[in-house]
Amino acid sequence: MKAAGLAGVIAGDTVISTVGKEGLDLNYRGYSIRDLAAHSTFEEVAYLLIYGKLPNVEELKAYTAKLVSLRSLPDGLKVTLEQLPANAHPMDVLRTGVSALGCLETENSFEEARDHADRLVASLGSMLVYWYHFANSGKRIEVESSESSVAGHFLDLLHGEAPSEDHRRCMDVSLILYAEHEFNASTFTSRVVTSTLSDYHSAIAAGIGALRGPLHGGANEKAMELIERFTDADEAEKELRDMLERKEKIMGFGHRVYRDSDPRSDIIKEWSLKLSQNSDKAFLYPVSERIEKVMWDEKHIFPNLDFYSASAYHYCGIPTAMFTPLFVISRVTGWTAHIIEERGVGKLIRPTADYTGPSPQAYPSIETRS
Amino acid sequence: MKAAGLAGVIAGDTVISTVGKEGLDLNYRGYSIRDLAAHSTFEEVAYLLIYGKLPNVEELKAYTAKLVSLRSLPDGLKVTLEQLPANAHPMDVLRTGVSALGCLETENSFEEARDHADRLVASLGSMLVYWYHFANSGKRIEVESSESSVAGHFLDLLHGEAPSEDHRRCMDVSLILYAEHEFNASTFTSRVVTSTLSDYHSAIAAGIGALRGPLHGGANEKAMELIERFTDADEAEKELRDMLERKEKIMGFGHRVYRDSDPRSDIIKEWSLKLSQNSDKAFLYPVSERIEKVMWDEKHIFPNLDFYSASAYHYCGIPTAMFTPLFVISRVTGWTAHIIEERGVGKLIRPTADYTGPSPQAYPSIETRS
Repeated sequence: MKAAGLAGVIAGDTVISTVGKEGLDLNYRGYSIRDLAAHSTFEEVAYLLIYGKLPNVEELKAYTAKLVSLRSLPDGLKVTLEQLPANAHPMDVLRTGVSALGCLETENSFEEARDHADRLVASLGSMLVYWYHFANSGKRIEVESSESSVAGHFLDLLHGEAPSEDHRRCMDVSLILYAEHEFNASTFTSRVVTSTLSDYHSAIAAGIGALRGPLHGGANEKAMELIERFTDADEAEKELRDMLERKEKIMGFGHRVYRDSDPRSDIIKEWSLKLSQNSDKAFLYPVSERIEKVMWDEKHIFPNLDFYSASAYHYCGIPTAMFTPLFVISRVTGWTAHIIEERGVGKLIRPTADYTGPSPQAYPSIETRS
Repeated sequence: MKAAGLAGVIAGDTVISTVGKEGLDLNYRGYSIRDLAAHSTFEEVAYLLIYGKLPNVEELKAYTAKLVSLRSLPDGLKVTLEQLPANAHPMDVLRTGVSALGCLETENSFEEARDHADRLVASLGSMLVYWYHFANSGKRIEVESSESSVAGHFLDLLHGEAPSEDHRRCMDVSLILYAEHEFNASTFTSRVVTSTLSDYHSAIAAGIGALRGPLHGGANEKAMELIERFTDADEAEKELRDMLERKEKIMGFGHRVYRDSDPRSDIIKEWSLKLSQNSDKAFLYPVSERIEKVMWDEKHIFPNLDFYSASAYHYCGIPTAMFTPLFVISRVTGWTAHIIEERGVGKLIRPTADYTGPSPQAYPSIETRS
């Protein structure tokens, strides 16, 4: 059996999420992404993915307090982050931070996976923003804040002040939407690493590396680069049609699994609209809408989660280079659920290849080589 | 199509190596592993894998000089390595070192892949041994040596003196044998990461994480832990039979692809025998041989490359925890060849899953949760 890109190959079972039988829906452990985005916080979703159930009042209180207590960074990690230059890719910084933390706080038994996951959920934002401020201004920030949520903590550290309620909740919803998506490339990477019985941080660092690519998590950054080239919708339409004529790839559209729409897109689109109304860059929203319309009219391709996340993040004051790292802060919960699930499978993931190279050839002594 | 562990699934084409139609042989780009181990140096094999051909006299001279020139470590990387404690897993150290180097010397264009590969071939040993000495004795070693080969350089830095010719060549042969093995789990991990169009260092760091697992590269360390429990062959046989009765897993035997023997095992076995003859731990060789015999008699399972590599490395004075990192120094050449090949495919690797979790369920308000 041969399948390029493993498209359509069922690589295993999962109880964590379904993208729906008709490719239309997304549930985390049976709960609709719409319900979770409307009623949950990211902390509840993280708990659902990592611990397997929605927390009750007491569990959520304890979990939130646990995450708040895990935000600090060991000195050795701070020194490491200080070595990474301002022009480093923030995904490379997070990959390095996670890898270094794995040396300082190694997973010594698979029983510890959930604790290491909580540590990362709590501290990935600290790592990213600590590095960002040190690299750009030389300032060593405190990585504590009075914000109780992961979303609020990140925005508070980034901007040095408490976020507005709208920005906090937009970020929270975004973290919910990005948390989990079955056997996508980064999750599958984490599962392949886990299948060798390697440790938690190796699997997460590998997932970060996969997510970095523009065909995966990097798409939201590419979408922003497109959107911010325009200041009005007509201009965007004209240029987009030219780009399509030149057969350029437009990022943030279509999906390997979904065929008609991405159920997450409408949710973040509403947030983009809402935040645009108080922004001096309100035009980014109609620009985005027009790009969506042209893509549908011309190619019948719909926006995926990445497309409207770009303008929503921009309205929250997030630098474009941090879009994919935010994806990490969220997806680490889904990766964790899959790592734990893969450990229950206990079988090495090792496909095979069709050899299409040279036939066996005699070994030439070095003097005879061309 | 469903396949646990992707066993037997053909995930793509490759021109880099074949494990042979009957699962008996191993060729790198058409050259038999036996010929390469008998006649080549690791530098020639690295060039073959990374550049696609065996180098001629001039090319090999230039390539060897290039590798010698790339051994030094940037200050920021040294500081990072100094933060990692002596009890860190050396694979975690290499993973972190590669990740940090990716921040300091980022791959900005896919054209650069081969240069970054050469940098890692040349400097992975420097990273590993720099950290090892600093963490264990606080000494900041020079990472230059007068040895011209990767094998000799590593042994010289580790022991602080030039290696014997036998140790140098045993290490060289071992690096040749470990360099490449088709779509094994770590190589496949690197290809999945690469398929998102991510960067070189992300793919390599991910491969290191996968190789760390005891079902993959970690097997040579587990083999050593078994072998060194015994001081004579009869004792080993008795205990091994007890272990088999208790259905314990014996590492370093069998292979997902090979069915009757691992062509690499005989080659490194000869080196283990040769080096045992001048060692005060000569008994490790007959112990290993007896374990091989019992495994064959009882289970009809043959030793793979990892099993005799364990005693051979031990005879070269290598600490057990460095066995898998040595595998990295070699396999980075094969990973690189596959990363370059996968970039030519240009298709996201994204399998799917069978959902076996809860049916869609109504969202419970937090007060109603158990």
